[in-house]
Amino acid sequence: MQKAGILFQITGDEKYARFIRSMLMKYAAMYPKLGPHPKAHNQAPGKLFFQMLNETVWLLYTAQAYDCIYNWLSPEDRAYFEENIFNVIIDWFTGKNAREFDRIHNHGTWSVAAVGMIGYVLGRQDLVDMALYGTKKDGSGGFLKQLDRLFSPDGYYMEGPYYIRYALRPFFLFAEAVERFQPELKIYKYRDSILKKAVFSALQTTYPNGVFAPINDASKSMNVRAPGVLIATDLAFQHYGRNDNLLGIAAIQNEVILNGAGLEVARSMADAGAKPVCNWRSIEFSDGWDGKQGGLGILRYGSGQEQMMLIMKYGVHGAGHGHFDKLHFVLYDQRHEVIPDYGFSRWINIEPKFGGRYLPENKSYAMQTIAHNTVVVDQATQNFFQRKEADKVSGKRHFFDAHNPERQVISARADDHYPGVRMQRTMFLLKDEKLQFPVVVDVFRLKSEEEHLYDYPFHFEGHFIFSNTKFIADTAEQRILGENYGYQHLWREAYGGAVNNGSVTFLSGNRYYTIITNTTPDMKLLFARTGANDPDFNLRSEPMFLWRKKAKTHVFASVIEPHGFFSEAQEKSDRARPLIRSVRVLAQNDEATVVEVKGGNGIHWRLFINNGNASPSAMHSIEIGGEKSIWQGNYKIELNSE
Amino acid sequence: MQKAGILFQITGDEKYARFIRSMLMKYAAMYPKLGPHPKAHNQAPGKLFFQMLNETVWLLYTAQAYDCIYNWLSPEDRAYFEENIFNVIIDWFTGKNAREFDRIHNHGTWSVAAVGMIGYVLGRQDLVDMALYGTKKDGSGGFLKQLDRLFSPDGYYMEGPYYIRYALRPFFLFAEAVERFQPELKIYKYRDSILKKAVFSALQTTYPNGVFAPINDASKSMNVRAPGVLIATDLAFQHYGRNDNLLGIAAIQNEVILNGAGLEVARSMADAGAKPVCNWRSIEFSDGWDGKQGGLGILRYGSGQEQMMLIMKYGVHGAGHGHFDKLHFVLYDQRHEVIPDYGFSRWINIEPKFGGRYLPENKSYAMQTIAHNTVVVDQATQNFFQRKEADKVSGKRHFFDAHNPERQVISARADDHYPGVRMQRTMFLLKDEKLQFPVVVDVFRLKSEEEHLYDYPFHFEGHFIFSNTKFIADTAEQRILGENYGYQHLWREAYGGAVNNGSVTFLSGNRYYTIITNTTPDMKLLFARTGANDPDFNLRSEPMFLWRKKAKTHVFASVIEPHGFFSEAQEKSDRARPLIRSVRVLAQNDEATVVEVKGGNGIHWRLFINNGNASPSAMHSIEIGGEKSIWQGNYKIELNSE
Repeated sequence: MQKAGILFQITGDEKYARFIRSMLMKYAAMYPKLGPHPKAHNQAPGKLFFQMLNETVWLLYTAQAYDCIYNWLSPEDRAYFEENIFNVIIDWFTGKNAREFDRIHNHGTWSVAAVGMIGYVLGRQDLVDMALYGTKKDGSGGFLKQLDRLFSPDGYYMEGPYYIRYALRPFFLFAEAVERFQPELKIYKYRDSILKKAVFSALQTTYPNGVFAPINDASKSMNVRAPGVLIATDLAFQHYGRNDNLLGIAAIQNEVILNGAGLEVARSMADAGAKPVCNWRSIEFSDGWDGKQGGLGILRYGSGQEQMMLIMKYGVHGAGHGHFDKLHFVLYDQRHEVIPDYGFSRWINIEPKFGGRYLPENKSYAMQTIAHNTVVVDQATQNFFQRKEADKVSGKRHFFDAHNPERQVISARADDHYPGVRMQRTMFLLKDEKLQFPVVVDVFRLKSEEEHLYDYPFHFEGHFIFSNTKFIADTAEQRILGENYGYQHLWREAYGGAVNNGSVTFLSGNRYYTIITNTTPDMKLLFARTGANDPDFNLRSEPMFLWRKKAKTHVFASVIEPHGFFSEAQEKSDRARPLIRSVRVLAQNDEATVVEVKGGNGIHWRLFINNGNASPSAMHSIEIGGEKSIWQGNYKIELNSE
Repeated sequence: MQKAGILFQITGDEKYARFIRSMLMKYAAMYPKLGPHPKAHNQAPGKLFFQMLNETVWLLYTAQAYDCIYNWLSPEDRAYFEENIFNVIIDWFTGKNAREFDRIHNHGTWSVAAVGMIGYVLGRQDLVDMALYGTKKDGSGGFLKQLDRLFSPDGYYMEGPYYIRYALRPFFLFAEAVERFQPELKIYKYRDSILKKAVFSALQTTYPNGVFAPINDASKSMNVRAPGVLIATDLAFQHYGRNDNLLGIAAIQNEVILNGAGLEVARSMADAGAKPVCNWRSIEFSDGWDGKQGGLGILRYGSGQEQMMLIMKYGVHGAGHGHFDKLHFVLYDQRHEVIPDYGFSRWINIEPKFGGRYLPENKSYAMQTIAHNTVVVDQATQNFFQRKEADKVSGKRHFFDAHNPERQVISARADDHYPGVRMQRTMFLLKDEKLQFPVVVDVFRLKSEEEHLYDYPFHFEGHFIFSNTKFIADTAEQRILGENYGYQHLWREAYGGAVNNGSVTFLSGNRYYTIITNTTPDMKLLFARTGANDPDFNLRSEPMFLWRKKAKTHVFASVIEPHGFFSEAQEKSDRARPLIRSVRVLAQNDEATVVEVKGGNGIHWRLFINNGNASPSAMHSIEIGGEKSIWQGNYKIELNSE
């Protein structure tokens, strides 16, 4: 109907208007008779659809269609439709389901946008005011409150990229309606242009191929071609000015929306000559509406499609779609995730898979800590999988420095996720000319007065090649890795004791990756694979390994080294063995951690990390083997003979 | 050295000649002192390399380099090189390793090509004669015997496409040398132009993307860009005349060889305008040197990249690299294998994976019958995994008809692979306008006086979606599917009883595939995954399922129906459930099998298969529910109301 409306506006051909009218006639005949949808499942129900969310989407588009033929319709038709469709649905949204309408959540955004837009069409400012300020019209709910509370001051969306790509649609469509009907509200400038920040921060979480990093509940393939992102990109380009990165996104989208904003993008694209490419830089986003609830760090190295990206997550939980994964990271290289995030457990819209909805394994596995690349304490999930507890706390930013692309670092903390355990993770992305590719140095410190069991996991995309650590495979029988918190979904594939500097090498794409860790012989190596306790084959089968350590305070330190080349088609393999040979924690206390890395080609690094209060200027000192080392700032990187 | 030789010939710059001379000086100083390589492993050893094969490759290229600088070298240099390199290596190949040299095998081809080429360079016809006719010069070995015995009269190579792409190099390089030095031998016309048939039959086994179907020991990515295929394509183009399919292959290769043949291809490519695309048709190749040892059937539907391909294997075992997989099939659709072949178990040239050689799991899994899509009798491999027994027998062609692209059929037999069990498999590739895509109908008849356990497996690429058959997953503990014959490498993931018309639906690429089978409640459904008894993680983790039946004579009949559409990125799913609802064997005896297929949209087919002697004209009759059906020819397809 919306497309027919646009076509009617452009062509004036009445067949399009008649099409909409005829559709509306059928809806009007049916709608007043409908009760709540019988297939509703833990959601506010719609009447046409199983969840009210779908119904708000319907109204948002139908409002546009109705607007297009409003003047063409007879007053009798209008009265008929308003009585039998619009008033009924508005009542459903703002009366019976006022709670959903006033909710500071993407479902709320769809609700207010839909009601606000039909309000403008019908000339009913009361509806618009409810949309802007909540059903009580006091600002405790509604669009402006959502703009205040759903984004951090940097524009980062509390649920993460997968859901903002969906929420961008009502945010921008309604903003555009507000801008046209009530320009005095200066909606695009609201909260220091929060809508601009929203679209830019969302786009900056994308991989070079335009796919959104899967943070919290998310598919692994959602990308900037999604309708909401397309709409937001074009409107942002129009309202906030020409921008090369937006053009780079538009080049991936390969389409524009059918209005003046889309025309501006299309013209700029034509003027651009060569195909625009995004040139996003490393960035840290603060999280939480006040910007004080941790954040998300993104390090990038390289350009165009040939980028390495390291993403670390240390913000808010993110409500119902949040994952219990503070200090989790993802590594992207060679155009795919090498150390991946599982994403959600959902075969989206595949009807035989529980109607295409979220599957039980989303909660029992995908949301759990062990499904991520962050330390699990005592085989339990952060905040013991209590969502409300998790929503009360957040990760904490510590320091972030990416000004030198060859020496980038993120450090963050999570102190409120395991009782009695304070965690700090510091990740460096370093390029040493002695190595082919940049490497990641990971330093994960856990501080505790009590002894705990620490599992330090790495999920990987690819095939195991070798380990310097002897292991015994579970060859004829496989059991689950644990009883709950997601462990029950992992088959134990192999186990072994550890050696010093234990390493695991796998092949991913055309490259080898070796993860070498400061292991000691008291530790254990475990290999596992998803798929256990999965009676309906809902999970994908994916490999991981972890190092297990019993300790009070402990520092895990690893280097992730990409190396060599393999092409099966060309039957070529080169440098299948890594260059880094040892990782050692030279010293660690509450003030600092010092890690030494050694390898072939004379590689010898020392990395100093501030564990105290962040400050770029404070002096720090720590004793290493009886000698005092002094340095200034949050970190110090000594590469080789420096 | 070979490239330097070519550059010297082209540029006349002596630096290239000096480079070759200097390399040869070092080889000459070293070579006479070398004994057999210490790392040889079950192969004839080289001296420079762990296997003699590599050494023959070295000589074949060094002979070319030597030829390029022969006249530039002083007579003293030549005498020195010949004494210290060439005579020693020739003696190693034709003396100590005469057996390898005379072997009718791709290793033998490399040997004779290398010795023959250095023979031409040195002007020693005795060496050339050994190359052409064997060390005894009586024709019992050598190049001509290889041309006689390694190919079927159709040019199909007994080891399969993966090895012919390697053997094409010595075949064509030596043929070209013979053609230039001894044109009177008319080598390109030998055995009714067997070299032409060799290259065309190899190329016709490729998928539309240029990747060779993995038959016998083979990687999953070997393709027409391999050097031997490039050489053979260009030389075939020059000697056998311009051919559009060869140009299509050259377009995938995107390069030509640096000689007159390459120039011809390049000029034709330039003249072609639009990028040439292969237009291979469905074809059957006979197998065995006499063409009487079964064959390989390839059915194609569609064109360009949008082809469905069904490949069925029923030829010779193929010696040391052969798999025990008669009546095995592979289904290719949407640019990938949907019902795949595992390929070899080898991480080729990856040094930490057993030096990049074949792994133990190649024999214990990849070669075994259960690793393929063909019925396994009593959980044992064909010919009980006795290679010499398998080499004595072969599959048998029955009938093949692809003249109507919408109604194609292959039927073949394997009577000598399980004692007391005669097998006939008939596969149809049918396009019914009532269905979106072509479907495969598989009719696998096993005839036996004794009761056996029949496992009817389907390996699949993708993710399980649903089954109409209830199954119980092995949720907390997994065990192996069996003790040997490859079953020990399969984890049992789930098991269930059967219903009538049991079906399994999986998602692969953007499409659903449902395999519906004429199951009965006495049968069992088993899901399994590779990876058990794999202590070094050598195997890939891949899913399969099988239907198990205890019976004497039995017919398995299935329809493989592709349907619908899924895009995770677009969050769209359409027609996730199949249209075919039942598959029934209406009648079967030694004369014929009749299968009925029914489904939605009024689908109702009957397929008649001749089980007796093949004849396109013979009349057949069979009783179906008391009524006699009569038809002419090897098969009859009744679609719907026909």
